[in-house]
Amino acid sequence: MESKSYMVQMNGNGMKIHKKRWNIRASEMSKNTLNPIRAIVDGMKLSPNPDKAMIALSIGDPTVFGNLPTDEKVLQAMKDAMDSHKYNGYAPSVGYQKSREAVANFYCSPEAPLEADDVILTSGCSQAIELAISVLCNPGNNILVPCPGFSLYKTLAVSLGIEIKHYNLLPEKSWEIDLQNLESLIDEKTACLVVNNPSNPCGSVYSKEHLQDILAVASRHCIPILADEIYGDMVFPEHTFYSMAPLTNDVPILSCGGLAKRWLVPGWRMGWILIHDRNQAFGQEIREGLVKLSQRILGACTIVQGALEAILNSTPQEFYQDTIGFLKSNSEICFSALSSIPGLNPVRPSGAMYLMVGIEMENFPEFENDVDFTEHLVTEQSVFCLPATAYPNGECGNPLYPNYFRIVVTVPEDMMVEACSRIREFCQLHYRPCNQESNDLDQ
Amino acid sequence: MESKSYMVQMNGNGMKIHKKRWNIRASEMSKNTLNPIRAIVDGMKLSPNPDKAMIALSIGDPTVFGNLPTDEKVLQAMKDAMDSHKYNGYAPSVGYQKSREAVANFYCSPEAPLEADDVILTSGCSQAIELAISVLCNPGNNILVPCPGFSLYKTLAVSLGIEIKHYNLLPEKSWEIDLQNLESLIDEKTACLVVNNPSNPCGSVYSKEHLQDILAVASRHCIPILADEIYGDMVFPEHTFYSMAPLTNDVPILSCGGLAKRWLVPGWRMGWILIHDRNQAFGQEIREGLVKLSQRILGACTIVQGALEAILNSTPQEFYQDTIGFLKSNSEICFSALSSIPGLNPVRPSGAMYLMVGIEMENFPEFENDVDFTEHLVTEQSVFCLPATAYPNGECGNPLYPNYFRIVVTVPEDMMVEACSRIREFCQLHYRPCNQESNDLDQ
Ligand SMILES: Cc1ncc(COP(=O)(O)O)c(C=O)c1O
Ligand SMILES: Cc1ncc(COP(=O)(O)O)c(C=O)c1O
Repeated sequence: MESKSYMVQMNGNGMKIHKKRWNIRASEMSKNTLNPIRAIVDGMKLSPNPDKAMIALSIGDPTVFGNLPTDEKVLQAMKDAMDSHKYNGYAPSVGYQKSREAVANFYCSPEAPLEADDVILTSGCSQAIELAISVLCNPGNNILVPCPGFSLYKTLAVSLGIEIKHYNLLPEKSWEIDLQNLESLIDEKTACLVVNNPSNPCGSVYSKEHLQDILAVASRHCIPILADEIYGDMVFPEHTFYSMAPLTNDVPILSCGGLAKRWLVPGWRMGWILIHDRNQAFGQEIREGLVKLSQRILGACTIVQGALEAILNSTPQEFYQDTIGFLKSNSEICFSALSSIPGLNPVRPSGAMYLMVGIEMENFPEFENDVDFTEHLVTEQSVFCLPATAYPNGECGNPLYPNYFRIVVTVPEDMMVEACSRIREFCQLHYRPCNQESNDLDQ
Repeated sequence: MESKSYMVQMNGNGMKIHKKRWNIRASEMSKNTLNPIRAIVDGMKLSPNPDKAMIALSIGDPTVFGNLPTDEKVLQAMKDAMDSHKYNGYAPSVGYQKSREAVANFYCSPEAPLEADDVILTSGCSQAIELAISVLCNPGNNILVPCPGFSLYKTLAVSLGIEIKHYNLLPEKSWEIDLQNLESLIDEKTACLVVNNPSNPCGSVYSKEHLQDILAVASRHCIPILADEIYGDMVFPEHTFYSMAPLTNDVPILSCGGLAKRWLVPGWRMGWILIHDRNQAFGQEIREGLVKLSQRILGACTIVQGALEAILNSTPQEFYQDTIGFLKSNSEICFSALSSIPGLNPVRPSGAMYLMVGIEMENFPEFENDVDFTEHLVTEQSVFCLPATAYPNGECGNPLYPNYFRIVVTVPEDMMVEACSRIREFCQLHYRPCNQESNDLDQ
């Protein structure tokens, strides 16, 4: 606005009067709080085809279509918590002891034991990630985050003056981490390695061996791990989810999770940090730091905290299985439909709620990139998929990723089928294989 | 721990290997997140008299004794929100439009109109304060906060690298702000003036004239105001609560509030920021900054958000009146009991849930200060009051305040009566008026 906002004057007593004009600027921190997805999506020209109802395959909220309600037991636990009249007051800033004990018991394993003291309840997994990054990193440090990956790591880190370094995931190896690339990024300023398994946006689930390889890198360089395991246990039947902590004796891990995805209640903002530190590398300092940070704004709603023990212990196995069954079936429908479309290369997911689709850009010469492609998909077919450029903002430095888009597989089956057939129509119309002269519209 | 943690080695290929030892330190931010109350209370030697049941007059949670339940309508609104199955998914990061509209309507006035866009829902008033400070201040700025005052302002600001300047409240003028002192603290780095009315810990309620005087200072220096009005409307019948925003046309105000106190559900973590900016001094920049910051971890639990409209609109007036009636009656009991105790000077409150009591330290020569005094009160009488040193950490630079203690007036009446009689016994035992030779134990 104006460059000079002060006019210093002297009054009769020789007293300085700061005669100012209003000049209130938003802080650097708020300006540096960037949400890549918002930036991409808000910048896109999204005018759906008025003749076709919009199908949004872009929203990472499993509840929006009403086809994936949470379990009755989960709702009952909330009502019981409310009726008890016991959970209206302040909880300790790290959460009720009993609720933390319940989480500890739920995620405890012989290899990686947990007690209530190892658990900090937070306002969603987002706050868990915020506290973990905040306690491990100083401004000027860097953290290693996956590309493509969930954009919040960047949003939080950059706002705190922490640098982001993207390591590559390899689509041809089911989105495993490019370990050489990962290791090459580590320097003396690296304060934390973020591993997201199962993955948003890839839907990948890492093998035990791959996780051990990742842990070996962290161990070699003594870098602690932030394991974003919010999709933990959400894997298709033929796969197994391995939490990272039980696979290492020396690498300290802050495992972030919550109720959002597996229990299908993301709005309730119930998350947690599990502190795994059998090697005493975090020591008291990190624990105390987390406790202090939790006192800033306190954590989760006490009604949800009060219900937590019952939610964890009485949600029936069938609920989890039904959710997984639906996600798998829907992702199979989507994968096989898109596999047969020339120009698209979907990557088969193993868990979470996502599926990534590669675009052979060279065979769609009308479009510049994934943003352009998905924008036209909205205009012509009213189907909205998130371009991978939004993951994370096209700054990976890897030319592979911008040409993917992400599909959320939580939509009802009929919408998924319809969406896939519209995507087929769209691709058939625009596909111009670059090594052919002909224009295979009807192949 | 260790000063040198790197050992750079070369392997066969001439590649550097960073052979590190684990050396993970908590971040500066976490170390700088100081909670003065915790620091004081944790440092106190609190061993209650085993023959007397503990009475804690120290806990700012109105729900702990069970005598102040929230209204049935409030609980019903929550159940309805749950039964609707509509509030389990993600809300917009600033909160549901409908809930924000409800808050806007509830706090709207002809002088200071509000729309949904002027409201940001947060995880408790604490997060509202965090966002307000975060958007207005850069590291190196300072904010003006009351002394004695709520400690969170300092906790948040210091952790963000923002300096705190304490302005004095005048107990002899019912804790009005010392305006000259306030104005003298303002410099070119001052980014925000925090005004807490009604006050924790003073129980004071400012007159319209005093608020106008404060606004005049802010206007003269073009300093925006963070109005912490979490105790808004919680004033005794013969007093009136004036929100700051309607009293000014030019000073931009972020008014922070929430359900915690008036609706007696602090654990639910439902807060809000009301953006008052009729003079366009904040402009789009501050609004956008707040929206961006809200995207970091999202705000309040969606069930509470879903219930908010009904909570605001159907809580009966009698509920509010009953709460106020109880608080007033209890504070009167406490005030008149303590007024008659030689050596104590309680300040009559006009609202909120607190009462401050001055200690004539010179007449209690056995004790060094308010911490020492309240510590012995626990040891001998099992009555715990918070020493004002904790408000805010004895760094006011004003010699008046350390010799106060705060009483929370939400305890059941019989406990209040019993506590006061124990305080009387304690004072009678230790009172040694310094201008007398005699030892008036039985006066
Ligand atoms: C990988 C990942 N981590 C964390 C989160 C945030 O979870 P919450 O909603 O509990 O804050 C999400 C949400 O989509 C996610 O995809
Ligand atoms: C003056 C003041 N402001 C803000 C708060 C925080 O309110 P909440 O519990 O909604 O975060 C409190 C809580 O005691 C308070 O006393």
